Amino acid sequence: MESLDLLISRLNRLPGIGIKSAQRLAFHIISMPEADVTALAEALTNAKQKVHYCPVCGNYTENELCPVCADPKRTSELLCVVESARDVIFMERVHEFRGRYHVLGGVLSPMDGVGPDQLSIAQLIERVKTEQVKEVILATNPDVEGEATASYIAKQLKPMGVSVSRIAHGIPIGGNLEYVDEVTLSKSIENRRKM
Amino acid sequence: MESLDLLISRLNRLPGIGIKSAQRLAFHIISMPEADVTALAEALTNAKQKVHYCPVCGNYTENELCPVCADPKRTSELLCVVESARDVIFMERVHEFRGRYHVLGGVLSPMDGVGPDQLSIAQLIERVKTEQVKEVILATNPDVEGEATASYIAKQLKPMGVSVSRIAHGIPIGGNLEYVDEVTLSKSIENRRKM
Repeated sequence: MESLDLLISRLNRLPGIGIKSAQRLAFHIISMPEADVTALAEALTNAKQKVHYCPVCGNYTENELCPVCADPKRTSELLCVVESARDVIFMERVHEFRGRYHVLGGVLSPMDGVGPDQLSIAQLIERVKTEQVKEVILATNPDVEGEATASYIAKQLKPMGVSVSRIAHGIPIGGNLEYVDEVTLSKSIENRRKM
Repeated sequence: MESLDLLISRLNRLPGIGIKSAQRLAFHIISMPEADVTALAEALTNAKQKVHYCPVCGNYTENELCPVCADPKRTSELLCVVESARDVIFMERVHEFRGRYHVLGGVLSPMDGVGPDQLSIAQLIERVKTEQVKEVILATNPDVEGEATASYIAKQLKPMGVSVSRIAHGIPIGGNLEYVDEVTLSKSIENRRKM
């Protein structure tokens, strides 16, 4: 059946959807009420059409500015640098951070041809200059590229007289020494705090 | 973001798509080329609109009859009874069976109010009468409802002089005694074959 096979192959292209999941989803979809299928299809095209990047910080938004940049209660003094717009959503879920964001749009990765010019680092420097930023928190992921990107940005920002910090790495809360990898464990010893 | 949240909640309603997967999929979708998103949305509505049940056997089809019923090379003498249209696709994947199918549309389940009248059992009996069926293979799943449904149908068909068989249950090929549950293991001993 052509239309079913096409649906399966389209679903199979999505990340984390293997051929078995794609088949199960496709069978479920053709057994759904037609209104629900239409609603799902519309939700897909609608989200794609409406959601774009905030011109200031690079976060996702449906309006001109993203909800964080548009909020006058968020302080410009604290700027949190993240890799992707998704990371902003993860950070916002914590309801802790009251500053603003800057989305890099990736990490430095010479192997993949990603240098500083491919990321929004020049815009970050410009924002630090013009927005009276006092502290930049580097929240790139704790992997090789994320660490290298954080180091590179720290080197660029330090001469500007702004305070630069890195999010803490260590054993997750509720974690267990037995199941933590050696690198994390050694980091958690290196970054130990006095009690 | 309304349209993104709506997409996440629509994806989250699909089977096996938890909230984390729905978020990951939604973020991926808004980063996909617009043409791909449109193609996915169209594949959804298209499959839903075009795919329906074969009026003869209950299998999925896009045409008047399903590919199996429309194939003159498939013999009417063998009729394989399955629970759902999905099962036909799984059976067809084996490329072994040369007969036709009959989809019950479920299994007997008095707790859920599913009796013989809710399944296509009367149609099955009618087909056995009119289509010169010589053997009916009962391929309902080997769980409580599937077994009960198979027994019920066998009882109905036996007086009609048709041969009735049940697919074999036992240890899967490549399986290991260590990891097979006790019920399967006891079935595989009960149904042992002489060598």
